This record gives sequence, C-alpha cells and structure tokens, in this order.
Amino acid sequence: MGLDPDLQRFPAEFAAARDPLATRAERAQDVERFLVGVLDAVHDLVPAVKPQSAYFEALGSDGVRCWERVIRAAHERNLLVIGDVKRGDIGSTAAAYAQAYLTGMEGCDPATLCDAITINPYLGTDSIEPFLAACRQADAGLYVLVRTSNLGSAEFQAQGDPTLSDRVAEAVVRWGSELVGECGYSSVGAVVGATHPRELAHLRERMPKVPFLIPGYGAQGGQAGDLAPAFGEHFAGGIVNSSRGILYPQNPNNLPWKDACRAAAKAMVAEFQALQPGRVG
Amino acid sequence: MGLDPDLQRFPAEFAAARDPLATRAERAQDVERFLVGVLDAVHDLVPAVKPQSAYFEALGSDGVRCWERVIRAAHERNLLVIGDVKRGDIGSTAAAYAQAYLTGMEGCDPATLCDAITINPYLGTDSIEPFLAACRQADAGLYVLVRTSNLGSAEFQAQGDPTLSDRVAEAVVRWGSELVGECGYSSVGAVVGATHPRELAHLRERMPKVPFLIPGYGAQGGQAGDLAPAFGEHFAGGIVNSSRGILYPQNPNNLPWKDACRAAAKAMVAEFQALQPGRVG
Repeated sequence: MGLDPDLQRFPAEFAAARDPLATRAERAQDVERFLVGVLDAVHDLVPAVKPQSAYFEALGSDGVRCWERVIRAAHERNLLVIGDVKRGDIGSTAAAYAQAYLTGMEGCDPATLCDAITINPYLGTDSIEPFLAACRQADAGLYVLVRTSNLGSAEFQAQGDPTLSDRVAEAVVRWGSELVGECGYSSVGAVVGATHPRELAHLRERMPKVPFLIPGYGAQGGQAGDLAPAFGEHFAGGIVNSSRGILYPQNPNNLPWKDACRAAAKAMVAEFQALQPGRVG
Repeated sequence: MGLDPDLQRFPAEFAAARDPLATRAERAQDVERFLVGVLDAVHDLVPAVKPQSAYFEALGSDGVRCWERVIRAAHERNLLVIGDVKRGDIGSTAAAYAQAYLTGMEGCDPATLCDAITINPYLGTDSIEPFLAACRQADAGLYVLVRTSNLGSAEFQAQGDPTLSDRVAEAVVRWGSELVGECGYSSVGAVVGATHPRELAHLRERMPKVPFLIPGYGAQGGQAGDLAPAFGEHFAGGIVNSSRGILYPQNPNNLPWKDACRAAAKAMVAEFQALQPGRVG
C-alpha cells in the first residue's frame, strides 16, 4: 500500500489539514493521525507500505518528522517499508542518501529507516555503488527505476537500441548479482509500471530473478489480469502498489473511512488471489 | 558555492558534530553554525549557493529544519539559492516536490524556498510539467540533469544515437521555450559537468540559450580553462559550482577557518576572471 498523504483527499474529519489557517505542524499532525489510522485498518492485509516522500517534504521539516513517525508506526505493525524517494546523485552524495534512508547516522532510531528505497539510475553504476554497499551493511533492498508508470515514460526510457530501459535492466541484474538471497531473488529490484503490460513480460524475461515493484495499479489504470507476466514462478518476485485506491476509496455506502480503506485493500487482495487461488497474499 | 555539510570535514572547533554521543539535533545545530559562518565569510564573493539536500536529509527532520534555516540565512545575505535535490517523479508527485521547494504550501515561510532546483529527466516531459508550472507561478528556475560530473556518467547518458544526453538537451530547449527572460536565457537550465570539456562545447551548441549549472570544478577535477566553451557571449549563461574546494580548503598557513574559506572563494573568482578580465564575477 502506498502512503501518499494528499491533504485535499483526506476524509471529512481531517478538515483541519485543509484549513488555510492551520500551521504546518498542525497539518503534519493530521497526516500522522490519518496514516496511522490507515495502518491500523489494513496492516494484516498487506506485507509492505510505500510512503511517498514528496508529500511529506511538502510539509518541510514538520513533514519529515511525520515521515519518521509513520515509518516507526509501520514497523511496530510488522510491515516492511519501501521508501519511495527516487534518489540518485554522484557517489559521495549517494552515500549520504544511503545513510539517510538505509543505514542511518550514529544514534538515529533504526525503526525510522526504510527496508528498501526506490532509486534513479540516470547517473550510472558509480552512483549506485554506495546504495549497494548499504544493502550489504543493513540487509536492505533497492528498487531501481526501469520503466515508470507514467504515460510519458517512453520518451527517454524506450529510446535507443537497446532501449534505455533494457540497458538499465541489464545493469540491475549485474548490480544485484552479488546480493541474491535464499529464494533466488536479489536485493536489487526494478520499478516497472503496471500501465505497460507488454513491457512487464519483456522485462521479466530480461530480469528473471529481480523483484519487481509495480506501481500504477488501480487509480493509474493498471488491471490485475494484465500483471500476471510480471511475476516469476508461483507468483513470486513481484509487489503491486496501490496508493490512492486504498487511501481514498470510492465509498458509495458511506462506511466509516477506516472500514472503506479496509474494504478497498481486501478487494485488491481478492482480485489478485483470483488470478491464482491460494498463491497470492 | 555548494553547501555540502560533511561532518567529518568540519573545522576543528566543530568537534561536537563528530562526537559519537552527540544527538542528531546537536549535530544539526553545528551544521547550521558552520554553514552560516561560511555564508558570512563569502556572501559578497558569490552570487548563489547550492545546498546539497542529501547531507541535510542524513540528519533526518533535524537536518531538514537546518536546511530551511540555512536557506533563510542565504536569502538574508542576498544570495540566490539553487536547491540540489535532483527530484523526479510522476506528475502528481512532481507537483508535491515543486510545492516543497519552489512554490510552498499555504502559510510556509517563502524565505525557506529555493530560487531554483535541480531535477532528473528520466521519467520524461509529463514528469517535468509540474515543475514548469511552478517556474511560471513562482518565477523560479530549474536545472535539468543532462550530463553529470561523475566518472561513470557516460554509461547511460552517452548511449544511443542521438545519445540520451542529446535527447534530454533537445527537451530542455523545448521545456524552456516559453520561459525566456530579458537576457535571452530561459528559466530551464541544464546540469553539465565540468569534468567533460568536449561535452560542454557540444551541449552549448545544442542549447545556446540555456543556463548551465556546472558542477565538478575543483575537487572533482574540472579546470577553469577548460570551461570557457560552456559559456555564451560575454561569459554569460553559466554558473560554476565549487563545494569542497571552498568549504574545506587546503589551509597550509593555518588561517582561521572562515578566512581560509574566503581565500579559497577569492582564488576561484580570480581564476575565472583571468579567463576574460572584467567580465566574470
């Protein structure tokens, strides 16, 4: 489940978050209260949450304090945390990002760190190495942007021969080759959008043992049935994200908002279980 | 001048920042004290500062509060602020990043926002549009990663025909075409590393009216003499960044640290003035 705290879409009881006179700290408090409520509603239905850093950063340092608290709350509920930060920079700077999200500075609360983060490959292998070192040090994971879910992702990613996406996919396999776990999957994953079904099959073929993070399901238009080719054997190797579909669900029967979130999460799980009964969950 | 607060390199009097028993808040206080000291030492010598977000993020919410305070201090000293955040995400998320750094949420202190930020083009035009909207709304600027300064930047950026860098350069010209100011330069700039002198000339030819942000001078190996082709007429259209060379200068005469920073900044300005006397500054 993605955690994209867009104040304008919060349930009615969080009107304070939208009050033009509210302070930033008050809004951040409402974000925490809403997201921890969502965690309580669905924590037994999903394996991981993916907080989207941008929405927290929009609330400045108050938002980043909230980010830390929400991550701690997710860990307290035994959820894995995939920090959607999409960072990427030259080596010395990448090392600081890896410390910020994966390994932690001396004295930091490890419960506020992420189990995995998303990263951007534009700068090349030397910009990825500090993150690989952090994976080894902290037993953490990465999801590298390969083919993103947005409509315009082909503009650069599908150009060239081999395409940029294919080049990055090849690098992802290489980067993860020394970080393969018991199940045969590596700690270096790939972000591949649910909105490009043909690409999913093509990229799974090129990255057979790479875990996929699949955004774009639901609100962005991706359908469960289209996603089967993204998985490996026994429906392993893929994690599908839904953010808006669970956080801000259609609620025609006017259920209490937590019940509506839980119903939406259950409906998503059921949709995937129908693809291969007993295997997904 | 880049603001890359690497605690391990701070002057001796900031030993507390490196104390393993110091809290994160204490370290962040030292970062603020050091960087505001540097601003005091060089503010009349440089036009802009480029805080590197990663080093602040490594200190969590305390670091982000420090980021806001240092940006406010830079604005109080009439410096432009280029936030080196290298963000890039799908449209709805990019809008949240643009709000975080350029336009600001309702009630936020505008002095803590950036005048421009760096962004990553991997996701394509639809991921850039929210930042272009922010430029129009807030009279802000962007520097898009085109050819980065790291040694491995060719791995993806120099592949394809046209190369990825050339495709992005063409897009940068297009993205900025409606945002051209009085001097003929657009608000959409390009990051082009000082470490690739031939690329600088080639990319200047392809982006004649695009402002260049040129990292990699000094500590990363770029030389002033190699950078002349990066500029437009009258040595306009380019801003060269030095971070470690000014913040953590060689100090053989054991000057007080602020004097050493000032001397390093003066030496950099002199090196560029020597290229075309009277034009650079």
